[in-house]
Amino acid sequence: MNTSAASSAGDPVRAAMETALALGDDVRGATSPNPPVGAVILDADGRVVGTGATQPPPGPHAEVMALREAGERAVGGTAVVTLEPCSHHGRTPPCTRALLDAGVAAVYFAVPDPHPAASGGAEVLRAAGVEVGSGLLAEQVAGGPLRAWLHRERTGRPHVTWKYAASLDGRVAAADGTSRWISGPVSRAEVHAMRERMDAVVVGTGTVLADDPWLTVRRDDGGLAPRQPLRVVVGTRGIPGGARVLDSATETVVFATRDPDEVLAGLAERGIVDVLLEGGPTLAGAFVRANRVDRVVAYVAPSLLGAGPAALGEAGVSTITEAHRWRVEGVTMSGEDVRISAVPVTGEGGD
Amino acid sequence: MNTSAASSAGDPVRAAMETALALGDDVRGATSPNPPVGAVILDADGRVVGTGATQPPPGPHAEVMALREAGERAVGGTAVVTLEPCSHHGRTPPCTRALLDAGVAAVYFAVPDPHPAASGGAEVLRAAGVEVGSGLLAEQVAGGPLRAWLHRERTGRPHVTWKYAASLDGRVAAADGTSRWISGPVSRAEVHAMRERMDAVVVGTGTVLADDPWLTVRRDDGGLAPRQPLRVVVGTRGIPGGARVLDSATETVVFATRDPDEVLAGLAERGIVDVLLEGGPTLAGAFVRANRVDRVVAYVAPSLLGAGPAALGEAGVSTITEAHRWRVEGVTMSGEDVRISAVPVTGEGGD
Repeated sequence: MNTSAASSAGDPVRAAMETALALGDDVRGATSPNPPVGAVILDADGRVVGTGATQPPPGPHAEVMALREAGERAVGGTAVVTLEPCSHHGRTPPCTRALLDAGVAAVYFAVPDPHPAASGGAEVLRAAGVEVGSGLLAEQVAGGPLRAWLHRERTGRPHVTWKYAASLDGRVAAADGTSRWISGPVSRAEVHAMRERMDAVVVGTGTVLADDPWLTVRRDDGGLAPRQPLRVVVGTRGIPGGARVLDSATETVVFATRDPDEVLAGLAERGIVDVLLEGGPTLAGAFVRANRVDRVVAYVAPSLLGAGPAALGEAGVSTITEAHRWRVEGVTMSGEDVRISAVPVTGEGGD
Repeated sequence: MNTSAASSAGDPVRAAMETALALGDDVRGATSPNPPVGAVILDADGRVVGTGATQPPPGPHAEVMALREAGERAVGGTAVVTLEPCSHHGRTPPCTRALLDAGVAAVYFAVPDPHPAASGGAEVLRAAGVEVGSGLLAEQVAGGPLRAWLHRERTGRPHVTWKYAASLDGRVAAADGTSRWISGPVSRAEVHAMRERMDAVVVGTGTVLADDPWLTVRRDDGGLAPRQPLRVVVGTRGIPGGARVLDSATETVVFATRDPDEVLAGLAERGIVDVLLEGGPTLAGAFVRANRVDRVVAYVAPSLLGAGPAALGEAGVSTITEAHRWRVEGVTMSGEDVRISAVPVTGEGGD
């Protein structure tokens, strides 16, 4: 979070929302198809008496976790949640019920629930005499932990982040196909951290044949992280039975198609919400052409190659006026590399 | 300048050096083969009584310009200069002589003069009883207005900045060769401002044949700027007599070679110090391969093309371990584009 502690020192609700934002972010990748929500309970004096985050399905929602910790101290207190509490009975009883039962006097949430069955939580609470407020840190929550889930709610499709690492002159490998390592150690560690927060990691058969990647998340010591995203291989070429991506480290799905929408529909059926597309150029081209990339994260390394494959293959652009237009969302240094994050200009992409 | 006015409010010498830095920067492109130096004279009470910058050859150096403005008020005062004052008699009498004649009590300079015939200025001044200090804002001056000139002093070669504009996926044009406009209006205006501060702008015959550029500096209203860099065309292919680059707007030199060192030697002979290499891929590849690019300035536009030529052609790299390694010097937004500036890692490039 960029918001400093100082800025919220005098405002327990804002400070609580910052905590809730971080709690939600921490469980990204572990909650789908449910949203990664964070919740904080303040007692009547504004002290934090409970914190919680969405548990892996079919576990409880964030509010319930935080209320459990707070117990009796929630009475007359305030619940601070990143998403509007649900009012419907799904796998778990509605959170509005739990909040009312706990006796909280006020509920603040960042982002309204766009889900037709779940929305109305605010109304239910208000009707029961609870003070309700919303919008606090809404942008940070909607662009952060709830980004992919909100996208899925709006479009019905998983959110796709296309990540690649290229040289300054846009190559993902040298002329002979070697690519270890184009980006530096800081960027590579960031990519592993990114994978760990994703529901699925997608590559094409070409990448499997060329690089034979594991696509697993590894700790600094090289060991497997406890949570692994679903590994997904896309394409019509066969892959060898001994490919590393087929090992027993975690599950792998193969889609024998080149159609991004078929892939995304198949992933949506499995409850996948947040997808990391790791290339290569052919698969990325197919997704970009179909306007099915919702964010690009490019690690641009300060090296020059002058030859070798480009990050993006054929994407349906034959002349400059047909270029896919994007908007830079953030630029930061990642070790010695430049990390550029961009989103499609309205009209393109998933929204 | 990044240094805020507040930081130097209490220090007239530092404030004067900031002014001198800006004065030197303002005359970049107009002083070669002399360095673009700025100078400020403070009177005995620390008030600014004279400012100056290097005049186009054979005009006076910065110190002399500033002393002329100060007149009698320089007596007992302080001279603040971006470069160590010269002590040799070249096209103009030595600046140390002028400073001593003017009766200044102290001289502060940012960067020592590396030129064998000119250095020793500090010693001459000290021997005459003048207080001498150095090093203030040295990094800003050496990396700013004096960068190219110091490079030329060290290596004997002009300093080469390779500038290009590419899509996020590293293309400088679409599949059909169209490239107007890959970068946005802010970047294009920046490039014109950059050209105006350069001694020469270099392209390959391929670019002339493909794009037929003017390579002139234009004002916002489309009119020609009063100062134009030398236009340079490099390559063994012929160019048509009616090419725009051969028009009467300013001088153009054609080098019928592909060897960067032949080009740079020819430019050095003409007193050229600061060169902007504007491509295309073949010429840039030749310069990168020969380690004759001293800085890259890349304008990365938030667009995706998926096909089309890359910014850099064959540069002598066949496998990833042979990659040219660079270091990112600065990343900024330029309108909607990302501007990345990088320099070769020691051992590569010009130094």
